[in-house]
Amino acid sequence: MESRSVYKSAGEKEDLTGISHRVSQITVSAIKQMPLLASKVPGCVSLGQGIPSPNTPLFIREAVIKALQDDSAIGKYSLQPGIPKLKDLIAQDLMRTRNIAHVNAETEIFVSCGGMEALAAGIATIIDRGDEVILNSPSYSSHIEQILFAEGVPKFVALAEGEDWTLNPDALRKAITSKTKALILCSPSNPTGAVFTEAQLREVAAIILEHNLFVILDETYDFLVYDNQPYFSLLSIPELKDRVIAACSFSKRYCMTGWRVGYMYASERIIKQVLKVHDAFAICAPTISQFAAAAALSGTNGKDGPGDESVKQLMETMTRRRDLVCSRLDKLSNVFTYAKPRGGYYVFPRYTAKDNIGSMDFALRLLNEAKVITVPGNAFGPTGEGHIRMSFGAEESELTEAFDRIDRWLAENN
Amino acid sequence: MESRSVYKSAGEKEDLTGISHRVSQITVSAIKQMPLLASKVPGCVSLGQGIPSPNTPLFIREAVIKALQDDSAIGKYSLQPGIPKLKDLIAQDLMRTRNIAHVNAETEIFVSCGGMEALAAGIATIIDRGDEVILNSPSYSSHIEQILFAEGVPKFVALAEGEDWTLNPDALRKAITSKTKALILCSPSNPTGAVFTEAQLREVAAIILEHNLFVILDETYDFLVYDNQPYFSLLSIPELKDRVIAACSFSKRYCMTGWRVGYMYASERIIKQVLKVHDAFAICAPTISQFAAAAALSGTNGKDGPGDESVKQLMETMTRRRDLVCSRLDKLSNVFTYAKPRGGYYVFPRYTAKDNIGSMDFALRLLNEAKVITVPGNAFGPTGEGHIRMSFGAEESELTEAFDRIDRWLAENN
Repeated sequence: MESRSVYKSAGEKEDLTGISHRVSQITVSAIKQMPLLASKVPGCVSLGQGIPSPNTPLFIREAVIKALQDDSAIGKYSLQPGIPKLKDLIAQDLMRTRNIAHVNAETEIFVSCGGMEALAAGIATIIDRGDEVILNSPSYSSHIEQILFAEGVPKFVALAEGEDWTLNPDALRKAITSKTKALILCSPSNPTGAVFTEAQLREVAAIILEHNLFVILDETYDFLVYDNQPYFSLLSIPELKDRVIAACSFSKRYCMTGWRVGYMYASERIIKQVLKVHDAFAICAPTISQFAAAAALSGTNGKDGPGDESVKQLMETMTRRRDLVCSRLDKLSNVFTYAKPRGGYYVFPRYTAKDNIGSMDFALRLLNEAKVITVPGNAFGPTGEGHIRMSFGAEESELTEAFDRIDRWLAENN
Repeated sequence: MESRSVYKSAGEKEDLTGISHRVSQITVSAIKQMPLLASKVPGCVSLGQGIPSPNTPLFIREAVIKALQDDSAIGKYSLQPGIPKLKDLIAQDLMRTRNIAHVNAETEIFVSCGGMEALAAGIATIIDRGDEVILNSPSYSSHIEQILFAEGVPKFVALAEGEDWTLNPDALRKAITSKTKALILCSPSNPTGAVFTEAQLREVAAIILEHNLFVILDETYDFLVYDNQPYFSLLSIPELKDRVIAACSFSKRYCMTGWRVGYMYASERIIKQVLKVHDAFAICAPTISQFAAAAALSGTNGKDGPGDESVKQLMETMTRRRDLVCSRLDKLSNVFTYAKPRGGYYVFPRYTAKDNIGSMDFALRLLNEAKVITVPGNAFGPTGEGHIRMSFGAEESELTEAFDRIDRWLAENN
């Protein structure tokens, strides 16, 4: 599975005169296109972009307000790899949450403009023109764009839709060629809500070592696993140390999507190289957001770890929202079939629609006629077509309103 | 002039196994390496990174504090190209400061993670492997890295050191080949302090149109021109509209280096393409910093334009600091020769040193022995060797202390 045309949304004709090859072949992700389109449609309710509805926790905002009053360093560049104190806190958090014996805060971490910059910079650092990168389908659409930006070739391995979108290590092994350089994993998964098991991931680890690949981890939703299931990260396997490039984020765990602060954890050798890209694109992550992230990680309002009271509350909120969305989807089983999300805050239902319309058309009709924002499944790789992604980050009243609208629209149109 | 080895600082041997070609050939700019080295040397005084010493103005911080208390949107993603209200304010500011008849805020502007992201993304959007990009020497070191990241070929045209680092349109014309895709201009200039004249820039405009080139403008220091000299921008020439990609910043004008917020102004066609890169690297600029930028531009504390009282004060402060640094350099005329900066806050003196040591060694000795941070000239292109860059963004007491230390060190060592 590799044809770009399968998942590139049909857009207007572009004038690409003078535009570089790398940029000619990428698109703005439909995840961001939909809110832009929606900004022209008054009165929409959003199941679109993955934004947790709660405000950034008060203890974080209060720490930032204090620094804005007292500490002029908050307005100035930080050291390029990040504020040392924040890097120390990140190292401690990684050791605790990933069961890593030792993380060197100085050499193995850099603070990025969101997990996104870490991913893009990491991919640009190891992928050359023509290198193949294996990713799951469905897959977070920006991973695809980031590979294409680096002029790499995305190779998709289908997740097993009928088995809770589970990982298929055998299929993954078969996709490896002499040109394969890396694979990308995101667990809990965007857009499917899958959480890969330790057994599956250990199989993947063996494949990585056997074929001397890099593995890029998008661990944005690490904290958000439902029903007391275990969470396992490839970061917990010491043998992979030199092969792993992990992008982590404060965006979802602390309701800080707009702050644009995350980090990369990798070997010293890799971090050194990625910092060149960080230097050329960002200079440093926003200092004010680094202050906020440090406040989040040093928050003492929980007993299990940094800021854990706010994270616990968010977990409870998101569990309720997942259950709400699933119960509404259950009532629409003539239209939607789906796997219950085990993590993250997305569900990726397959839809049945009159005239077999494509997912972009389906999402556009939902937007323009039902006034509900979703993201078309074709943005997420070749097996994404026929689905839409729904985020349940919004308030329960909004989720209810969105499904009420979908109910009415389906009653009138399907 | 093009050999990379001329200006690449001699570093430790790197293990580049598995690292992409684009990243193998770039470096972390010496501008950021020096503060990192300095963080290991206690008690340094900085003439290094270009950070204006004043805190972000109070009216900006107060607006942000209020939003942190009242407006939960401040913690969430903005629309991907930026907050519409901020884009409107930017459009008004551009029309006022660049004398542009009409700027379309929606289609011709996007808000970036500092001017740096706008530059890197703009270059990645138009430069393909092997494309030549003309830039001045000396030139801001990150421009060089950004070109190399895009696998373009930097071609340097020397500024006239003996004539206040003035632009040489004839030399520029001679450097054009069939592979030339763009040129980069920065005025007021980093690192030289030159401000290019309208007459010179109009000659350059004619060359751009004649050869159908793009021109990338780094207008970070636009507001900072001394001695009531005129400032002219290529943005004021309507015929260039489709050829210009301008990166602008709030970092220096409003003492907001750490906020990482700037913007790109270009034609709708170009903005559309660059937004793909912005999407893959950043999602959006930090929302909190966009709030701060909007506060800066809507500040009513000046009568000439947005936030002009704070800008006026900054101008006065920087004029005093420039004069202080120049008078100290004048007393060291046996060691330093320099052109008085006409804009920005850098001076780029040529030094005479025992044993003709290179600029990296000279800067390292200043760091380790005199405890003064500077940036080696070889980071700024082939004619940068034999110079150091000094920023005068720091407090006058620090500038005095730095020069006292340099005086003592020179007395002992030269």
